[in-house]
Amino acid sequence: LSENHVIDIFLDPQSVAVIGASKNPIKGGHRILNNLISNNYKGKIFPVNPNSEGEVLGLKLRKSILEIEEEVDLAIFYVPNKVIPSILKDCIKKNVKGALIETAGFEEVGEIGLKLRDQIVEITDNFSKIRIVGPNCMGLTKIEGDSDTDAKGGFFSGFGVFDEYNRGNIGIISQSGMLNGGYLMNLMRNHPNVGIRYSCSIGNKMDLSEIEFLEYFLEDPSVNVIALYLESFKNPRKFIELCKKAKYIPNKTIILLKGGLTSLGQKASLSHTGSLAESSQLVKAIIKQSGVIQAGNLHDLFQFARTFSMVYKSGKKLPKNGNVSMMAGSGGAGTISADLIAKYGLNFAIMSEKTHQLLKELYPEWMPPNRFALLDLWPTMEKAMTNNVSQEEVMTRIWRAILDDPNVEGVFNMIFVSTRFSKRYNFQEMSENKTDKIVLIWMVGENQAVRRITKLFNKNNIPVFPTLEETIRNFSILVQESKNKIGILT
Amino acid sequence: LSENHVIDIFLDPQSVAVIGASKNPIKGGHRILNNLISNNYKGKIFPVNPNSEGEVLGLKLRKSILEIEEEVDLAIFYVPNKVIPSILKDCIKKNVKGALIETAGFEEVGEIGLKLRDQIVEITDNFSKIRIVGPNCMGLTKIEGDSDTDAKGGFFSGFGVFDEYNRGNIGIISQSGMLNGGYLMNLMRNHPNVGIRYSCSIGNKMDLSEIEFLEYFLEDPSVNVIALYLESFKNPRKFIELCKKAKYIPNKTIILLKGGLTSLGQKASLSHTGSLAESSQLVKAIIKQSGVIQAGNLHDLFQFARTFSMVYKSGKKLPKNGNVSMMAGSGGAGTISADLIAKYGLNFAIMSEKTHQLLKELYPEWMPPNRFALLDLWPTMEKAMTNNVSQEEVMTRIWRAILDDPNVEGVFNMIFVSTRFSKRYNFQEMSENKTDKIVLIWMVGENQAVRRITKLFNKNNIPVFPTLEETIRNFSILVQESKNKIGILT
Repeated sequence: LSENHVIDIFLDPQSVAVIGASKNPIKGGHRILNNLISNNYKGKIFPVNPNSEGEVLGLKLRKSILEIEEEVDLAIFYVPNKVIPSILKDCIKKNVKGALIETAGFEEVGEIGLKLRDQIVEITDNFSKIRIVGPNCMGLTKIEGDSDTDAKGGFFSGFGVFDEYNRGNIGIISQSGMLNGGYLMNLMRNHPNVGIRYSCSIGNKMDLSEIEFLEYFLEDPSVNVIALYLESFKNPRKFIELCKKAKYIPNKTIILLKGGLTSLGQKASLSHTGSLAESSQLVKAIIKQSGVIQAGNLHDLFQFARTFSMVYKSGKKLPKNGNVSMMAGSGGAGTISADLIAKYGLNFAIMSEKTHQLLKELYPEWMPPNRFALLDLWPTMEKAMTNNVSQEEVMTRIWRAILDDPNVEGVFNMIFVSTRFSKRYNFQEMSENKTDKIVLIWMVGENQAVRRITKLFNKNNIPVFPTLEETIRNFSILVQESKNKIGILT
Repeated sequence: LSENHVIDIFLDPQSVAVIGASKNPIKGGHRILNNLISNNYKGKIFPVNPNSEGEVLGLKLRKSILEIEEEVDLAIFYVPNKVIPSILKDCIKKNVKGALIETAGFEEVGEIGLKLRDQIVEITDNFSKIRIVGPNCMGLTKIEGDSDTDAKGGFFSGFGVFDEYNRGNIGIISQSGMLNGGYLMNLMRNHPNVGIRYSCSIGNKMDLSEIEFLEYFLEDPSVNVIALYLESFKNPRKFIELCKKAKYIPNKTIILLKGGLTSLGQKASLSHTGSLAESSQLVKAIIKQSGVIQAGNLHDLFQFARTFSMVYKSGKKLPKNGNVSMMAGSGGAGTISADLIAKYGLNFAIMSEKTHQLLKELYPEWMPPNRFALLDLWPTMEKAMTNNVSQEEVMTRIWRAILDDPNVEGVFNMIFVSTRFSKRYNFQEMSENKTDKIVLIWMVGENQAVRRITKLFNKNNIPVFPTLEETIRNFSILVQESKNKIGILT
């Protein structure tokens, strides 16, 4: 990483003052402090509160940042908007390098907020005396280890207390606190296999914005996937430049959810982060030129990030042509998947002669297999049953043949988990997929069993989806990203 | 219902012969028998198997249908394709009115199957001597009561044994056995509140097709929602006519998933149900003229059916204009929902003066509420906290005001379920919504709590969705259907 990137102050501070640190556990200032301490933040922590004294969580409270003798890299603000300018003056006096302002009530609230903003611009001499992240944000998170191991640690300044997380390869930059607060915590709890490296709430972007965080993540090899939620572009030209740069970095993908694509969305955005309307034409042009993967909603943003995260972790190459195989126990699912495969610009692989010969043996005479790699496995199971052959053995032979077929880049497998059907699968072998093929699983069935087998696949970086369309859509973005990079990297 | 509709033979037979009834519990013929007996089918049941004798599940086995002395309405076939023509001859001799052929290996397998088909056409004198459902299908289901009560009962001929189900207002007609077999059973297990009235697998449609089942469901007042999966249209003109007829029936909605929309899908469909390619232009024209709600995938088909089912059960009117309110605890979710609301052709309601006045009281001065009904509730919760007012009370006042606002037709509520936030909601009151407004819930949070609170809402016919886009999409189809019916019913 380049030395002394401005973001180092915010994601790697050696010492932190929490302005507004409170003894009351339901207050935000208390939660920030609690996060830093309970998650083993390695630097020094100084709670500051003009209206309180004594100790909080074992640390001495100060009335002002000026009472601290040691150096302070970063001040985190959780105090009412009106007192911020004067405390910022103190910070500048104290030579604090960065201010992370979580308080709301600035650009997004109109006149009063804009006046406060003007004051801050003046006090900081246009942000030259101190750099600012926020205001109106949910803080920054950098995860160094997993919460359930001794390695646990990092830098946590969030609106909730982070107690379940894993370090991973995803970096989040967001103008919605959801993606740094409750929603993110919920995702981490429900998808323990999806690790996060950074989660950065940038709020109103008064000074620093997506640009600096993007620069930082592009240079940081621990980040493979960058998930962005933006309500405005701070510097479109620079944004496009950075996204283009990402295409030259093999294991780096940027996914963008843009809020405020419609005029209704822009109206909403104005009262949220104070983002002014951008022409829809312009926004479309920026997204197109940047060549990022676009997500249409929060769910896709997360799911796409998860898919790329797992594929990068698995070390497999992105598929170039989109030639896939669909394996299902239902002909109807086969027909629908064919429509969706066409819709998402993919194609069925034409199976090699070798694979086709094997399938001919395993399918009944009255139902010969296709040449294209859409496999309705029902007839093979019927034949196995009739001939008293192990269904699992037949399934495994087909599975291996498809994975070994040089024409197949990716495999979708519909797995129906139930007492009756699960015996057909060798889940252990399937999840360990040692080939270079990308496998995505569509799993339906009994809830508990689904959760158990999903875990097994996830552990081996094979994503599992609850619906067919999600399975196919997530493969299609891998091909899209591969095409983004083709001609540049190959 | 019209007297003696041909489908009565199949869904309301007084006596049934199971051809291929087996003592081996893993065989399909055994499962069909088991379904009929264990689910209290009220008619007479005769197991028939030329290769077996003695008793099965307490019933005497016969070698041939001709050995039965009583009348037989319906014969269900679960025997190899090649023996079917000769057994059909026996059925005709015996004056059996209908044959439900589950066996595969006909139109979908090419030459051999087409020959068998020709033989059947000849033997039945073009289906005038006996009517046929199938072949290549998963059977028919008619649910009279819930599986966990004494009322349990109905007619079940499926590929699996039905042991968890509830009677409801949805009728399914499908060319994919998934929707009659495993996938359906899985849906019923995971969504116990979603009741099914009929589930009809029509297979290759050699004789009877979607047309007759559609006619039947349109006349049956116990069916509100008709969910169709088709790979081909047997009679496009008649199909359009019936769908148009549905628009004149207040509590009736047809949802269609068409497999084989693309040429790739048609290739797949040929080997599944033997459906020949239809021009994509023609298919589009049929769907447009019929004015049905179109689903793009299996998940949407089911979810749309569930939404209509609940709205009809609740007795609420379909929304005419699509003027909604979105209540969320996140500004980002608000912006994204605004984009999605625009995408799906909906609009935020402009709140009445009365509602706006109330909100002004509850929002902090630095963050006044919008005039349009997008509510970021975060600032109201902050204000309540600061003033030591009960958050639940504030939330409930807002909730009531929005539901009472005459300009609002529907409400989306993002509920974040967690130890910290759940206390803000009066879930009991919310779920009992006694107004005429349609409420859809987007729920995220801790898995177990989500399941528990979802149950409460579902019990009161309020659908809960795991993602924002699904929530909005499902409201938009209600408006679409209302517009389909407008001018006709109002």
